[in-house]
Amino acid sequence: MAELQVVVLAGGVGAARFLGGLVETKGNDSDITVISNTADDIRLFGLQVCPDLDSVMYGLGGVESSDRGWGRENETFNTLEELRAYKAEPEWFQLGDRDIATHLIRTQMLDAGYSLSQVTQALCKRWEIPATLIPMTNERVETHVVVDDPETDHVKAIHFQEWWVRYRASLPAREFLTIGADVAKPAPGVLGAIGSADVIILPPSNPVVSINPILNVPGIRQALRLANAPIVGVSPIIGGEVVRGMADKCLAAINVAATASGIAAYYGPRSGDGLLDAWIVDELDETSVKEISQLGIKTVATKTLMSEPGVSKKLAETVLELANQVTKAKDA
Amino acid sequence: MAELQVVVLAGGVGAARFLGGLVETKGNDSDITVISNTADDIRLFGLQVCPDLDSVMYGLGGVESSDRGWGRENETFNTLEELRAYKAEPEWFQLGDRDIATHLIRTQMLDAGYSLSQVTQALCKRWEIPATLIPMTNERVETHVVVDDPETDHVKAIHFQEWWVRYRASLPAREFLTIGADVAKPAPGVLGAIGSADVIILPPSNPVVSINPILNVPGIRQALRLANAPIVGVSPIIGGEVVRGMADKCLAAINVAATASGIAAYYGPRSGDGLLDAWIVDELDETSVKEISQLGIKTVATKTLMSEPGVSKKLAETVLELANQVTKAKDA
Repeated sequence: MAELQVVVLAGGVGAARFLGGLVETKGNDSDITVISNTADDIRLFGLQVCPDLDSVMYGLGGVESSDRGWGRENETFNTLEELRAYKAEPEWFQLGDRDIATHLIRTQMLDAGYSLSQVTQALCKRWEIPATLIPMTNERVETHVVVDDPETDHVKAIHFQEWWVRYRASLPAREFLTIGADVAKPAPGVLGAIGSADVIILPPSNPVVSINPILNVPGIRQALRLANAPIVGVSPIIGGEVVRGMADKCLAAINVAATASGIAAYYGPRSGDGLLDAWIVDELDETSVKEISQLGIKTVATKTLMSEPGVSKKLAETVLELANQVTKAKDA
Repeated sequence: MAELQVVVLAGGVGAARFLGGLVETKGNDSDITVISNTADDIRLFGLQVCPDLDSVMYGLGGVESSDRGWGRENETFNTLEELRAYKAEPEWFQLGDRDIATHLIRTQMLDAGYSLSQVTQALCKRWEIPATLIPMTNERVETHVVVDDPETDHVKAIHFQEWWVRYRASLPAREFLTIGADVAKPAPGVLGAIGSADVIILPPSNPVVSINPILNVPGIRQALRLANAPIVGVSPIIGGEVVRGMADKCLAAINVAATASGIAAYYGPRSGDGLLDAWIVDELDETSVKEISQLGIKTVATKTLMSEPGVSKKLAETVLELANQVTKAKDA
């Protein structure tokens, strides 16, 4: 039997947890390609930091910090302590000592002329991750957030990381700009993976700052729309609340309700001009199933809180089963 | 009373220890300028590492590892462990996590266009060191060692650090090349400090790879020869042996005897075409005093093993006293 070709569009920790379940479910019977958001990448202290790529790499490598939700387990922060003692800017970002090795190698390779795709492949080699991890693009694309500067009250755009980490998303966002996306190209392998996929998954990542930047790279949204594979999404909302606490701030900025149905409508039905063939909502949001189904999106409710044991595997099974149903219905 | 203007040409740990004693002796009654060798600098893992500048900075900052002889005390090596797990080259160099913060800031500032002088000043600010630390030059100058490649037997030049750290100086050195020195300029402040000095000191650093590269920067040797101040050197030999074990390999390569008199003759008497007005040998090498004095270099023997408590302070006092005698004799 041919391997199932699975494509996952990924943000950070939510995607990493979902991928853990997907790998557990499929064993060696699938060929998983992860297309990672890179718009939250940032160069700090001279290091090129790629939070979402690393969340997936460390997550699938089994060395992520599950407490922190980013970076490595068994981590120390001695370099950071020294950077702060030197008063190096910015003072609001954290980097662990083990994690810094990844950024050093990445930065050195990028500066030597390797593409981010090549660097990612080189880094992943060590972790022997059971998936192909590729960046959405090799060009520099960064999410900036338009806010009222708390010091001057003037409108200005700040890097997403500054908004997210320094201000804990507390400054009202007027707008999210995916800087550089208009002239970016999908990284090698991105369009091919989408085109030959059997299933395409939008895991429970932040729709505005994790998934949307991927869709903003010219060619990717169109490739998804044209793909043969069904597109199945998982709602990042549980019982009307965002799981990790700040995605609602992003949704508010673009006037999208932070609800299972609000986000489903934001992605839109594939039968219209959107992306979703199917959508999974949390069991606590079961009341929204009917409303979402009426948009033309096949919707089911199940347990989605992946910090509970066994849930991510079960969730991945549900996604694949739902994809299978969509494919069969289309073929019928 | 005007402050005594002291200039010290510095290598790494030997110079740092001597400087500790000098500071202890002089308190606030002197203005110390340290001109540091930078020819053992190397870019590794994308980081600009300046071993001699850092040895002096950490030494005078009171945070050097006295056990190791390089890097920071209370150090961890987690980034390094990860770099090795990624099989990052080179595998023979060590960097501590705290130390990496220094290299990150330096590299970022250099890449942003600041000079090494400016970077060094910025880094030293934190440590409030009781001296002005300046690099010998802001240009890239590197000591390379000509050896027979142990794998191919062909002659090749390798970076000093590779020869020193990877091969523990065990490959016979055919020659030392100070690459880039011919077109380098002394860093701002170097010639001025030498010109206005009251005392100039060559501490017990490696003459071949620490002091000689400084002398090879065009203009520096001449400035020393023309300076009003007496030049006093301290022998790095104790009882006919090099203190830290490998400087003899460097001396052998240039056919200089690894003895107190051999090195004195290598620097040469100022009354000839050399540099030394005075020279301090270890008490164990007292028998060489007469021979060296006959070269026209005022020579005394005293305790020089600075790992013993109180010795570096006493040694600094002896150096300053000897300088004073030379000055008085000249004025008489």
